[in-house]
Amino acid sequence: MNDRSQSLFMRALRREPTPRRPIWMMRQAGRYLPEYRATRKRAGSFMGLAGNPELACEVTLQPIERYGFDASILFSDILILPHAMGLGLGFAEGEGPYFERPLRSVDDIEALPMPDPNQETGYVMDAVRLIRASLPAGTPLIGFAGSPWTVATYMIEGRGSKDFARAKKLLLAEPVAAQQLMNHLADATAAYLAAQVEAGADALMVFDSWGGALSPTLYREFSLASQQRIVEYLQKHCPDTPIILFGKGCGQHLTSLAATGCSGLGVDWTMDMSEARQRVGDQVALQGNLDPAVLLTTPEVIASETRRVLTSFGDGPGHIFNLGHGITPGVDPEHVTVLVETVKNWKVE
Amino acid sequence: MNDRSQSLFMRALRREPTPRRPIWMMRQAGRYLPEYRATRKRAGSFMGLAGNPELACEVTLQPIERYGFDASILFSDILILPHAMGLGLGFAEGEGPYFERPLRSVDDIEALPMPDPNQETGYVMDAVRLIRASLPAGTPLIGFAGSPWTVATYMIEGRGSKDFARAKKLLLAEPVAAQQLMNHLADATAAYLAAQVEAGADALMVFDSWGGALSPTLYREFSLASQQRIVEYLQKHCPDTPIILFGKGCGQHLTSLAATGCSGLGVDWTMDMSEARQRVGDQVALQGNLDPAVLLTTPEVIASETRRVLTSFGDGPGHIFNLGHGITPGVDPEHVTVLVETVKNWKVE
Repeated sequence: MNDRSQSLFMRALRREPTPRRPIWMMRQAGRYLPEYRATRKRAGSFMGLAGNPELACEVTLQPIERYGFDASILFSDILILPHAMGLGLGFAEGEGPYFERPLRSVDDIEALPMPDPNQETGYVMDAVRLIRASLPAGTPLIGFAGSPWTVATYMIEGRGSKDFARAKKLLLAEPVAAQQLMNHLADATAAYLAAQVEAGADALMVFDSWGGALSPTLYREFSLASQQRIVEYLQKHCPDTPIILFGKGCGQHLTSLAATGCSGLGVDWTMDMSEARQRVGDQVALQGNLDPAVLLTTPEVIASETRRVLTSFGDGPGHIFNLGHGITPGVDPEHVTVLVETVKNWKVE
Repeated sequence: MNDRSQSLFMRALRREPTPRRPIWMMRQAGRYLPEYRATRKRAGSFMGLAGNPELACEVTLQPIERYGFDASILFSDILILPHAMGLGLGFAEGEGPYFERPLRSVDDIEALPMPDPNQETGYVMDAVRLIRASLPAGTPLIGFAGSPWTVATYMIEGRGSKDFARAKKLLLAEPVAAQQLMNHLADATAAYLAAQVEAGADALMVFDSWGGALSPTLYREFSLASQQRIVEYLQKHCPDTPIILFGKGCGQHLTSLAATGCSGLGVDWTMDMSEARQRVGDQVALQGNLDPAVLLTTPEVIASETRRVLTSFGDGPGHIFNLGHGITPGVDPEHVTVLVETVKNWKVE
């Protein structure tokens, strides 16, 4: 047991009572912070930042120092892992990430290497070690990766997509190759996450940003099944490290996700926390779920909508306050202060 | 009773038994068809097409002639109505629609005129009359409009949006003005749809493309409530005309939508038809829900995925086959033939 094991975040994740709800924010290190923009400028490029352990550590700590969040999350990107498989990650100005060598055939899938997490992504593990050494001893560090399906969409489409036409075509028309890709990504992701734990991560999170774009059948066969495979590996190799699964637009799959054996589920803002809690019962902790757009309104609205989320979860343990998705770049940093103070002061006075 | 009242589509919408399932496709008149692209080129611009009754009639009939769909839908756009309120609709090449004069203040909302459907949108009613006169006597014609919330997002943002920041800010920070806007749009939309019925539409559909972007509370207060207001008006003024409500990403709201008094619900592809049916029981007919991305695969996959949807609905009346969203521009027209033939031949031989 380390200092962090008794932190608000880790206790809430174990569904133990806490004196108040813990809070952190998806993308809490990011463009809405002037100090992030300054470091990002010095880094020159996104990979100059995510690929540099010192700078990645610097931006990871910025929101902890400014707001006193109850958990930190490694500054990185879900596409670092396929980049380590040789796809060549790039970022086009204002257009998001792309791969220079996307998967174009079943042969490409079969040729995918299995990266050694401490080699090809050694800089990520260095960043985790540095962040762990630099964080306050009581602040837990969350490691993360993308879900196999979500990562695969970029690997197949070559970039962000609206309809995932190529990726879905693979699942539908080449199910054996698609399953091979999902298994490969699940195994690589599990090893990558386990290495983050070895380097100092206290908890893990898997982001399934595009699970909600699939029909229920494809979701179960590909996205859910590959997340299950990751959870099973981690339960064996890092049995003391809790895992949070977050699927955007996956509210209807919450009970299936809870049954994977994960410790917590991220909930997006399109479902009331009361409803989410009713669905999963006592199985898992829940993390969420303020609509990020609320942070673009006024301090009064932010405070009242934050209290609405707190009230919706209700009494009892197991709630980690968060947004229902990553914070939007244009948010006023003072608005985040209102959010954090509202959560920290709720029912505490 | 006219010829259409005994059509497969109208009977399925009343949940009466039919010898086979009716089929039509959202955006069935569109860019995937070479004959559409030819007419669109002659029209010069989107408004040159949607604003010209003869050309709008021509493209409305094209998919009926090519595929023998069981229902036709007016070729138009959900932004025609706010255009009639003076916002100045334009289409930027490859970037979608925009408004020259978006709503920028509460004063702008208060100043919105209430268009006379037969004046400002008289060309739409002319198109409906012309289509009705040109269609086979037994083919029903669906009129449509956007939902107040979905239309409002474009009116407030000025164009398509990813996070609907301005529109959500209005709902959250100016709820009285937002409610005024929703009521104004609901009343204008109801009158606009009633005029389409008077001009010859046999059924009506309301598209809530962005309802799924709202938290449950905002959804109920703004999107659902304004759709309810439209349904109530139409039940009074056109009691014999069935109404279908389609909300993308609104699977969790199906029971609330069914309770509005509508006749049918559109279901997107992220929920199994069996699940949708279990939720709404015998209250309404269901329309959907093949993932449009399936049409980009192969004839074999299209046939098997189509049968999966048919099977998922199960036996019994009340299923109108459709996609779970509008057809994608890049689809091979021959692939649509496979879809239509699979539905028409299912369990009929």
